[in-house]
Amino acid sequence: MDKQTVTIYDVAREAKVSMATVSRVVNGNANVKQETKEKVEEVIKRLGYRPNAVARGLASRRTTTIGVVIPDVTDDYFAELARGIDDVAQMYHYHIILANSDEAGTKEAQVIDNLLSKQVDGVIFMGNMISDAVREEMVRADVPFVLAGTVDRTGVQPSVNIDYVSAIDEATARLIKAGHKNISFISGPLTDEINSEYKLMGYKNALTVAGYDYDPALVLSTGYDYQSGYKLADQVRNTSATAAIVVSDEMAAGVLNGLTDAGVRVPEEFEIITNNDSKLATITRPQLSSITQPMYDLGAVAMRMLTKMMEREELAVKSVILPHGYVERDSTKG
Amino acid sequence: MDKQTVTIYDVAREAKVSMATVSRVVNGNANVKQETKEKVEEVIKRLGYRPNAVARGLASRRTTTIGVVIPDVTDDYFAELARGIDDVAQMYHYHIILANSDEAGTKEAQVIDNLLSKQVDGVIFMGNMISDAVREEMVRADVPFVLAGTVDRTGVQPSVNIDYVSAIDEATARLIKAGHKNISFISGPLTDEINSEYKLMGYKNALTVAGYDYDPALVLSTGYDYQSGYKLADQVRNTSATAAIVVSDEMAAGVLNGLTDAGVRVPEEFEIITNNDSKLATITRPQLSSITQPMYDLGAVAMRMLTKMMEREELAVKSVILPHGYVERDSTKG
Repeated sequence: MDKQTVTIYDVAREAKVSMATVSRVVNGNANVKQETKEKVEEVIKRLGYRPNAVARGLASRRTTTIGVVIPDVTDDYFAELARGIDDVAQMYHYHIILANSDEAGTKEAQVIDNLLSKQVDGVIFMGNMISDAVREEMVRADVPFVLAGTVDRTGVQPSVNIDYVSAIDEATARLIKAGHKNISFISGPLTDEINSEYKLMGYKNALTVAGYDYDPALVLSTGYDYQSGYKLADQVRNTSATAAIVVSDEMAAGVLNGLTDAGVRVPEEFEIITNNDSKLATITRPQLSSITQPMYDLGAVAMRMLTKMMEREELAVKSVILPHGYVERDSTKG
Repeated sequence: MDKQTVTIYDVAREAKVSMATVSRVVNGNANVKQETKEKVEEVIKRLGYRPNAVARGLASRRTTTIGVVIPDVTDDYFAELARGIDDVAQMYHYHIILANSDEAGTKEAQVIDNLLSKQVDGVIFMGNMISDAVREEMVRADVPFVLAGTVDRTGVQPSVNIDYVSAIDEATARLIKAGHKNISFISGPLTDEINSEYKLMGYKNALTVAGYDYDPALVLSTGYDYQSGYKLADQVRNTSATAAIVVSDEMAAGVLNGLTDAGVRVPEEFEIITNNDSKLATITRPQLSSITQPMYDLGAVAMRMLTKMMEREELAVKSVILPHGYVERDSTKG
């Protein structure tokens, strides 16, 4: 293998560990078993992986600082992506300015503006939607942007995502196969493109394949947080639904507890599949069956792409799609 | 009231809303009810609160950027503090560089070093312990530091905390009053000063007052995360304990689920009180009874103190103690 092209993914695959583990070993983090550490170091040596080789470009950088825009640092999904971003940034000797956007229209563009005024060398943007103002900022900026866990139909900016349409399609098909005729799609705001143009499409697609009619009354939308989900449970009970796909784990935990507290037994009377498999999914009782996403890797790969762009290297693929999966737990009958 | 001295706390108290709400109104955040917004604006006008008055010092600042050190951005407790820091920083036109320390000894000092090399105007430090290396960095630095939700026996740096000793003392006394003779103290690493020198002291104090012997076998320590707590549940069952005080919500959720999954009924057979009342405390079933901490305010007040120090204003109090409370939920018999 050409040593210049050995990547962290090669090391992870060869050592049969996660990218997170490789980056922990490279960064000298103590939270790695001695045995694993030795294995990874052996593979690094054998493949000739040189994480610091990119540091050659250091002189051409302006500040060795990158900006990371996160909608809410208390959101499990984006916080987990931020971990991946942080580890890879550290590996390549970049510092991070992390900025909460609150997804409040004007604030997002202002946040990017502030980051650019700090002379960051690049920006990772995370959000449930991209406003026109943000889109303009990205195009106007003279530093690269990468979208992590964030979709943009225009495809102008490089991005790292999973195939949200297929993931929801497959999960919906599972519930259909389990015999459900009335499945609710519980979403964040439908003004967020990731819901209306991707996840909802996957849901509709599964219905179409099964020959079911699409019933708008089964599509419920609210905020992404626990309380919003909890409050929505009453509405869910007033539909004909006997199962639901939920697009965020906090929301799903809310719907689950709201239903349970109202005496609805999950999964016996109502099945739920959630979307992110964040740590919350194993904390609820029953535990939540979930689509799985490589959240840490979504962040790590996005940051690795950004380092390439900042070093003016070619990107092999501009829109990276990472694999998703599914884990069966106790909110479905299985 | 002297208009120069009107603070955000005065406005919050007068308008009978939280500091978070006042800062949302001042920052023009849309997530505030119209009625509340008008109320807050009326109070701001009446008291003559001028949040931007401090901006007069702008010219003397170097970068209008402050560093925030956080042990782990996926930790609910510190992430919530970070929200308070972020809102107040925005109000005073400071930008934030947020750095994950991972609480990995050498990394923490390096993280501070990096922040200082970015010419930050000040630093908020959050952590479960302060290493000697970090302590030295803070003393050597020529910019102010404030500790948020973070203790330091030396008392050299200004800090904002609750009275951890009393909070744990009171919670332990509740369990004693409920008839428990064997109460476990479930802690993070005892090498962390906040556990060994504060929380454990509160626990011991309550035992002493009740005339109970201190039994080291009832003190269990592990990592602060959910999985560590879950695994610890087996050990908890092997003690004589019939109740426990747990120092972090993730851990408490783990202990709760570990016990429940092993067939122990909470609260009937085992009562649990947790420490932070983060959102997790209402997501578990049963919901967790908890010490309450003004987490957002811990961050917000720390950031406000830092702005004062950066503007070379006097601090009225160097070690601020905010009030704590207790909320009864379903993991105790009440």
